[in-house]
Amino acid sequence: MREPFHRELDLVLTQLIDLLVLVRSAMSEATIALLDADLTLAEQVIAGEAEIDAYRHAVDDRALRLLARQQSVATDLRTIVAALRMSSDLYRMGRLARHVAEMAREAHPARVVPAELRTVVSLMSEAGQRIVVGAGQAITARDPDAAVDLEKADDELDRLHDNLYRRLYDGTWEYGTEAAVEAALIGRYYERYADHAVALARHIAFLAGKVDQGAPA
Amino acid sequence: MREPFHRELDLVLTQLIDLLVLVRSAMSEATIALLDADLTLAEQVIAGEAEIDAYRHAVDDRALRLLARQQSVATDLRTIVAALRMSSDLYRMGRLARHVAEMAREAHPARVVPAELRTVVSLMSEAGQRIVVGAGQAITARDPDAAVDLEKADDELDRLHDNLYRRLYDGTWEYGTEAAVEAALIGRYYERYADHAVALARHIAFLAGKVDQGAPA
Repeated sequence: MREPFHRELDLVLTQLIDLLVLVRSAMSEATIALLDADLTLAEQVIAGEAEIDAYRHAVDDRALRLLARQQSVATDLRTIVAALRMSSDLYRMGRLARHVAEMAREAHPARVVPAELRTVVSLMSEAGQRIVVGAGQAITARDPDAAVDLEKADDELDRLHDNLYRRLYDGTWEYGTEAAVEAALIGRYYERYADHAVALARHIAFLAGKVDQGAPA
Repeated sequence: MREPFHRELDLVLTQLIDLLVLVRSAMSEATIALLDADLTLAEQVIAGEAEIDAYRHAVDDRALRLLARQQSVATDLRTIVAALRMSSDLYRMGRLARHVAEMAREAHPARVVPAELRTVVSLMSEAGQRIVVGAGQAITARDPDAAVDLEKADDELDRLHDNLYRRLYDGTWEYGTEAAVEAALIGRYYERYADHAVALARHIAFLAGKVDQGAPA
């Protein structure tokens, strides 16, 4: 049986997983809203950010209270710092899901993404979500080596991102400037989303003392 | 005379100001490189990121060592947490300066920004740097109220950003898709840069107990 301090610390990490699940659902729904021009779903994601924020604040408050207890050894302190950093990444990931949903809402009833780009956007979203699932497993298992694999998965997303840009720049783009800019921004949102997910795994490596920092690239 | 612990903590905040100055110079130089297609300057900014990273790690290590000393009262802990958050924002700001410099490098010898957008890009850069200067003053003076003023300054940057987008979307854009996408991304880089600068001031408010969190918007 862990003593109260460590039970509280375990709870912080469990809550981070809950937050990750909320954020992942937000991005999945935002992607459907984007690709299907689903206004109701877009508005649901946008409204749902308040819940993500509230949860994030609750996790941070718990972590800060643990810091203030002053009975923590160096490993515990690293865990608390890593938890605060992870909550910050998850918060940013939630914001990025919101950005995607806002694009869907603003364009409605039109679709933001031309039909020929639906596949690459879907693949980017799926690649991002695989990284998020891997990051969740890394947190649960306190696996300090997961970051390496996730960086490889992130390379796949970078390739998709490059494909998207090539299509925008190949000289045959016929959907106008606004659609090109929006497609580019969507690509960047998924890329940043995945970068923050990789950073989650890096924070786990950090708390195991494997790396100095875990900031997103 | 402050005792060793607090002298160390003061040093962390002083080093954050040094880091801010490095980052601000990087963005100023990146902007000149971008607007003047100055390859040497662009490469200098890109190479200079290593220095920013090293400095950031040094600040974080010092802050983490202070955390581990376990003699800190709640206010000190908040200061250390705020310092770690500030170093993370400054790191991101440095990355954004690098993104701007990379655009200049990739386009060289061509210019990324069409002549008619030079003014709005300059104004965005200047508005961003005013916020960074204000954030530096807030850190030095431990001014918990600075964030409110800086948010107003950030609204000005948002207006410039909207102007830029209107120009891209008004139907008379004649520089092609790639230039439009790049102009939009540049706009987003300055906007994110300023958001992180506002977040710096919010972390100061946080350490004074004025707000719960200080994440960038």
